[in-house]
Amino acid sequence: MLESPGLLTDLYQLTMAYGYWRTGKAQHESVFHLFFRRNPFGSGYAVAAGLQSAIEYLQAFSFSQDDVDYLASIPGNDGQPIFDKDFLGYLKALKLSLQIDAIPEGTVVFAHQPLLRVSGPILECQLLETALLNIINFQTLIATKASRVSRVAGQDPVLEFGLRRAQGPDGGLSASRAAYIGGCAATSNVLAGKKYGIPVRGTHAHSWVMSFDSELEAFEAYASVMPNNCVFLVDTYDTLEGVRNAIEVGKQIARNGFRMVGIRLDSGDLANLSIEARRLLDQAGFHDAAIVASNDLDERLIESLKNQGACISIWGVGTKLATAFDQAALGGVYKLGAIKDAQGKWQPRIKISEQMIKTSTPGFQQVRRFYDAHGNAQCDMTFDELHPPKGQSILVIPGDFSKQKKLSEKTPFEDLLVPILRDGKLIYREPSIHQMRQRTQTQLQQFPSTLLRFDNPEPYTCGLEASLHELKSRLIDQERQKLSRPGEP
Amino acid sequence: MLESPGLLTDLYQLTMAYGYWRTGKAQHESVFHLFFRRNPFGSGYAVAAGLQSAIEYLQAFSFSQDDVDYLASIPGNDGQPIFDKDFLGYLKALKLSLQIDAIPEGTVVFAHQPLLRVSGPILECQLLETALLNIINFQTLIATKASRVSRVAGQDPVLEFGLRRAQGPDGGLSASRAAYIGGCAATSNVLAGKKYGIPVRGTHAHSWVMSFDSELEAFEAYASVMPNNCVFLVDTYDTLEGVRNAIEVGKQIARNGFRMVGIRLDSGDLANLSIEARRLLDQAGFHDAAIVASNDLDERLIESLKNQGACISIWGVGTKLATAFDQAALGGVYKLGAIKDAQGKWQPRIKISEQMIKTSTPGFQQVRRFYDAHGNAQCDMTFDELHPPKGQSILVIPGDFSKQKKLSEKTPFEDLLVPILRDGKLIYREPSIHQMRQRTQTQLQQFPSTLLRFDNPEPYTCGLEASLHELKSRLIDQERQKLSRPGEP
Repeated sequence: MLESPGLLTDLYQLTMAYGYWRTGKAQHESVFHLFFRRNPFGSGYAVAAGLQSAIEYLQAFSFSQDDVDYLASIPGNDGQPIFDKDFLGYLKALKLSLQIDAIPEGTVVFAHQPLLRVSGPILECQLLETALLNIINFQTLIATKASRVSRVAGQDPVLEFGLRRAQGPDGGLSASRAAYIGGCAATSNVLAGKKYGIPVRGTHAHSWVMSFDSELEAFEAYASVMPNNCVFLVDTYDTLEGVRNAIEVGKQIARNGFRMVGIRLDSGDLANLSIEARRLLDQAGFHDAAIVASNDLDERLIESLKNQGACISIWGVGTKLATAFDQAALGGVYKLGAIKDAQGKWQPRIKISEQMIKTSTPGFQQVRRFYDAHGNAQCDMTFDELHPPKGQSILVIPGDFSKQKKLSEKTPFEDLLVPILRDGKLIYREPSIHQMRQRTQTQLQQFPSTLLRFDNPEPYTCGLEASLHELKSRLIDQERQKLSRPGEP
Repeated sequence: MLESPGLLTDLYQLTMAYGYWRTGKAQHESVFHLFFRRNPFGSGYAVAAGLQSAIEYLQAFSFSQDDVDYLASIPGNDGQPIFDKDFLGYLKALKLSLQIDAIPEGTVVFAHQPLLRVSGPILECQLLETALLNIINFQTLIATKASRVSRVAGQDPVLEFGLRRAQGPDGGLSASRAAYIGGCAATSNVLAGKKYGIPVRGTHAHSWVMSFDSELEAFEAYASVMPNNCVFLVDTYDTLEGVRNAIEVGKQIARNGFRMVGIRLDSGDLANLSIEARRLLDQAGFHDAAIVASNDLDERLIESLKNQGACISIWGVGTKLATAFDQAALGGVYKLGAIKDAQGKWQPRIKISEQMIKTSTPGFQQVRRFYDAHGNAQCDMTFDELHPPKGQSILVIPGDFSKQKKLSEKTPFEDLLVPILRDGKLIYREPSIHQMRQRTQTQLQQFPSTLLRFDNPEPYTCGLEASLHELKSRLIDQERQKLSRPGEP
């Protein structure tokens, strides 16, 4: 259980909440979107993950007496408490009443699409921002990484071994969960196995071998205890000597009707050593014995080893997966899209920036994915759900506004954001983690392989529905005009 | 509280524990060392952190009925349970009985030095490996990063803002804790503030401004609620226009006796914008107003901004600090150093590798730091505590075994590993987090600035005591000879 979920936030969310409350705006209805601005790892896509963890957080969301006592003790710059007592009482009594829609876990998603849409009283929306970003950012990052690693491994299972190098205990847990959704077959993390129902794997380490007088003795002892679970780590002293010892013990247990599962390589030249190990195993009749490899692997190294003809059948991937080593953060953001005015009318909002990529999209957004007749994804269109396209849709592509795509009303489509909370209550029926993992596989097949490649992936067509694009352009112009009003200081 | 602490491990620790238990070796006394092989970030040093979190884990360490029920359900490769019931009963009743020594948090440490030494029954040592690595690896990484960022910021406070991009909720919590120990002045993470007693900071975000019809109105509203806590974020629409609005509201609150604390820049050219903002603030008489800057900052960017004469007085550092973006994992390992034989005699153990950096050091290690007459650190010597040097010490430098350093018995020194657990009981009196942070500062002053620089830091003298070096060389030779015995298959 998450301790003090209400406090899992940046202080400024609470000072803003206090500001909304004091200025009578706490209940103003607003809509925020959680999205990222660039696909991670130079990838052409990402895999959405973390929703179920976010739901657990939302269901636990509350402030205990202890939490508000702590908040009462936080000083402002003059040493006086920032928050007044009535506000803290309000927080303690607060129950979420908002609406959340989200793209299900295991869905292929793209930059600038809302993964989550949070609408309702602005105070509540604001209080959830930090934790939702924390949870969705990281798990989406790891699921994406895992999908890349798993894809290049092809039919070979990928095992996630990252806990010891992960960013804290929960960094490890979340990583194991998201890695499974993205495509890993199992984890070494026992707690993740228990908590999420992910298969767990593992046999022994160098220390097992070192604790005996010889490697052969160590393998024999291991086999005597777990003859049904023997993957021998062969590189404590010398890898090929280790393979010979494994074969020796494999023959011993075979006499008792057991089968050596395989060997593990954890250092050295994995390409040559695996080829040589395969030759030794095959010569001894162990054609079925797996060769597990680990040692700072990632998708690029696996691709290279495959290209070199490495005889590796199971890939153990740790640090580089569990920390997304080459890009350790997704950089998702959470931006206000619209707010209701006193007359109850939605007013779209924009944040502009000199960098176009940092200018937000206004409105109450939904993402529509269009398919061709074979069920392949054709393009994604973000539109304002309060003003949905009628009949033919016109998709405008950012970066090239002159390019448009027309989609007849008969084009099959799916709206990606689905209802999660209504009036603060969970109405989403969560799929099992195995279904989420399956969804990733099914989804990836709906996209061309040119999108999935590592280098210069072919961009997928994503954009804004024409009237939303027009609204965005108009708001940008308005803000720029305000700034250039003559006579202003 | 940590849930199921006994399960926060890799499955192979449990299969090895089972193996030790079944082969009668569970109680064999052994000693393991936790160390890293390379200083992170190309740095000349690291800052030890995470010990208190490790102690919390050790004190919670146990297996519940629920945990062992889960373990009973894990199948081996033939689908049968791996673990037998008596072993699971043993785990459930297990109480730690081992000895742990550690280098206190906030200590400057170097590659190959044991940060933790764990000794006692091999089964217990093994079960703790993964969680100890997870906790110490990550916090040491972040404390080191924070020490670099804080050093380059000089007298300016550094605020840690990373929670939303951190690797999971606990990734964020651990990062906030370690960042403070490493030198940050405060965090935005409210839960870290409550849990660890770290100062918290924050005012408002873009969404506050966007929720009003104009920026001026937004600043006025904020000031009306928290006149004692006004740092205005000025870049929602146009930064310098934002500074003018902040000045306007700063003047308003000054009439009521309040002081605008400052402004925050979060995008654009921070060098030029901060200089321009300073000019505007000074012109308006706000000489004391702070300029807080954020936006993907790290130690290199801060150094560059300082070199450009940026007028920034407070640095908000998020993603790059909380995830140690440029090197997201420390890569610490946990290796067996010795094991007691049937006669109760310690037998040193080594793991050899074709890469010399991956060959472990045997023995029962302690680290001795020698000082010169001014209290400056001179060199560090790892020695075998069961065979401590008598009289003059001879230090052998790895990588250049011909180089030796003689240290007279009168050289002042300090042994860095201090007792933490004895017979499983905590005997360490934990310092406060503020004392740990102070220790980092004090320690860094004991080393030359040439060690602390970012590019090509001057290496600090670290090595092995001569007889330990001799033991290591002898064991390497022995293992290599075993491998080359003629007539062996």
